[in-house]
Amino acid sequence: MSDRPVSSLPHVLIVGSGFAGLNCAQALKSVLVRVTLVDRVNFHLFQPLLYEVATAALGVDEIAVTTRLLFRRQRNLAVHMLTIETIDIAARCARTTEGHTIQYDWLVMAPGTVTDYFGHREWATHAPGLKTVEDAIAMRRRVLLGFEQAESELDRERRRAHLTFVIVGGGATGVELAGAIGEMKNFTLRHEFRAIDPADARILLLDAGERILPNFAPELSGRARGDLERLGVDVRTRTLVTDVGPDYIVAGDARIATSCVLWGAGTRGAPVLASLGLPLDRQGRVRVGADGTAQGHGEIFVVGDGAHFHDAASDAPLPGVAQVAIQMGRHAARCIADDLAGRPRQPFRYLDRGKLAVIGRGRAVCEIGPFKLAGLPAWLIWAFVHIMFLVGFRNRIVAMVEWARTYFFQHRGGRFIIGDR
Amino acid sequence: MSDRPVSSLPHVLIVGSGFAGLNCAQALKSVLVRVTLVDRVNFHLFQPLLYEVATAALGVDEIAVTTRLLFRRQRNLAVHMLTIETIDIAARCARTTEGHTIQYDWLVMAPGTVTDYFGHREWATHAPGLKTVEDAIAMRRRVLLGFEQAESELDRERRRAHLTFVIVGGGATGVELAGAIGEMKNFTLRHEFRAIDPADARILLLDAGERILPNFAPELSGRARGDLERLGVDVRTRTLVTDVGPDYIVAGDARIATSCVLWGAGTRGAPVLASLGLPLDRQGRVRVGADGTAQGHGEIFVVGDGAHFHDAASDAPLPGVAQVAIQMGRHAARCIADDLAGRPRQPFRYLDRGKLAVIGRGRAVCEIGPFKLAGLPAWLIWAFVHIMFLVGFRNRIVAMVEWARTYFFQHRGGRFIIGDR
Repeated sequence: MSDRPVSSLPHVLIVGSGFAGLNCAQALKSVLVRVTLVDRVNFHLFQPLLYEVATAALGVDEIAVTTRLLFRRQRNLAVHMLTIETIDIAARCARTTEGHTIQYDWLVMAPGTVTDYFGHREWATHAPGLKTVEDAIAMRRRVLLGFEQAESELDRERRRAHLTFVIVGGGATGVELAGAIGEMKNFTLRHEFRAIDPADARILLLDAGERILPNFAPELSGRARGDLERLGVDVRTRTLVTDVGPDYIVAGDARIATSCVLWGAGTRGAPVLASLGLPLDRQGRVRVGADGTAQGHGEIFVVGDGAHFHDAASDAPLPGVAQVAIQMGRHAARCIADDLAGRPRQPFRYLDRGKLAVIGRGRAVCEIGPFKLAGLPAWLIWAFVHIMFLVGFRNRIVAMVEWARTYFFQHRGGRFIIGDR
Repeated sequence: MSDRPVSSLPHVLIVGSGFAGLNCAQALKSVLVRVTLVDRVNFHLFQPLLYEVATAALGVDEIAVTTRLLFRRQRNLAVHMLTIETIDIAARCARTTEGHTIQYDWLVMAPGTVTDYFGHREWATHAPGLKTVEDAIAMRRRVLLGFEQAESELDRERRRAHLTFVIVGGGATGVELAGAIGEMKNFTLRHEFRAIDPADARILLLDAGERILPNFAPELSGRARGDLERLGVDVRTRTLVTDVGPDYIVAGDARIATSCVLWGAGTRGAPVLASLGLPLDRQGRVRVGADGTAQGHGEIFVVGDGAHFHDAASDAPLPGVAQVAIQMGRHAARCIADDLAGRPRQPFRYLDRGKLAVIGRGRAVCEIGPFKLAGLPAWLIWAFVHIMFLVGFRNRIVAMVEWARTYFFQHRGGRFIIGDR
């Protein structure tokens, strides 16, 4: 890699192929730089639909695309499947766990976040988070096994534990998981079991705060809670989780027997961000200035969920959502182009296109500027946005065409490296 | 389960939801028995296309269907996701690893086979077989990682090892894997790498015997070998594998550096078959009589790959292919219906519909009775058979319809429990 003879063009190293890294890389297409895009996986993941993989509505293939395929025609870019271990900001180089050293002129850090258990890493074994494809497969496994084990279980108490699903965290992820499992038990699994009635399953959504979906207006939080309760979800706010074990969770005063705890509560900046040795906030995110770069290091951009960008309008850090990541990634690319052209950089300005959270079939909440929508209208917007995405992303009309393409055009859709490392 | 009050109907226990078990269960739909179908996984797998999952052409969702969904409307049948550990043929009951005891009146054993390393179980870590979904994902991982690691590798020797793919076994599985990797390196991955040319990859297909595809006529073996060689596969027959390590294989006189060894060489009857205490052949299969039952046990049918049924026509055991399994499964159901009706059982007769092996795009071999086909005509037959299957199996016309169904009809396509147990 860096030991090879390099072209004379300056070098941009992008760490992470999520929304931020991907959009930065694409925006550098016509800029006179060499770009290296590094990630520990070989694909880009459409994270907003990962909960659908976790609840068995979609396969991995439907929300992932291999990074190489995306950048096949971008000649100034090389993709490497490597894990960045540390960054040496003095020497301007990155070191990988595989032993490579990669020099850079600009560094774009877009490693995202990891699941945070608030100091209880031992809970991770019992309560998977939802950041990676492996997480989603682990969640799916737990949810489906709950119903399977209940069907074969004779003991009444244990059967009840297998049919108890606990979701920790009332943000968008927790609400989407709870809603999807609610629909599964009420509709999808109907008629499939003989000894149990899947509708008897209990779903608990726990949150330590005052209300679920705290980023939304209070009336939408209330509406979402009502929609979840109509699906049979037991929503418990102001409920702190104090212990998680292999077959139980302690929440507030209650010890709940369950074989399925799903964690949607917290995230923190990816560990590699700490290796920069720069100021981090309490969630391990790097504090960045007006142009999106780290303090005193105009050559280091931190973009996406791992960045703490103070938003003057809300007097809070920008949220960890796809729109922020996409816009920050593109802005970093523009700054690099400005540097090359000798133009001054522009400060980053976030254009808020609104927020959406889906609860179930025909049920969602949506906030666009002053407009607040719930129920079917919100869900139709959600469905439109995501169908458009899926159509564009996979660009497939007929499943058979996909299959035939393998033979006639040599396209292979399932090239995602998942499973044990 | 068996401890629950049971209906007065006699009970058929089917172990395994592959082709044999599934077809037996479906054929018992209108027979006056209770049926319990037990498998350690919750889905039926279309095994003949598993090599396409291993070589990234298809996703798991496209070749698997949940057993519960298939049997939703068959009221005399219950599905349980359990692992049978031992059978007590004297007490006529099965015991599961989960601690259940299941009584039966008839037992239909359809557990299939497992990969056999000819006494070298330590090779399993380095050379995955292709029997399960997890196997296919492990194979895919190794193949794709080979190219990824080569792209980032500076050392010439190690790069060459990463680009060396060794397939052991020249039966249909080995030929299909070698052909698919050949197409991948020549076509699919073209233009996606910067430091390597995927076409430089070496593919070796090793077999200890005289020729590949030994079940086919010699001229078709020769044709398949030629087709593979045109794809750049180095076919080595009369080559015995004597050692497999983490980064090498010893075959004949050669020690070959490689990070990807795929095992398609041998299978043996699933271990649970040995717990019957009945005569097994050298490959761990149960020897069955003319009606498909074990010697002295008219109530125990062994069907599919785990059965050794002597075929008078060929003076050999019937091969472990889908057609044999389907026909044996249905025959066992007919015998049970005959028993109930007080009719004598009919002996099992295999109707050979022919055999097919695919090498690549437009290349296959096919043998139907006296007719021998190769090249495009054989491939068109193969494609027709498998497209018909895929269309029927998944019954989906448009990918978007699939996705919309999740919301409107509550169907979920991806309910396969995979990953670590």
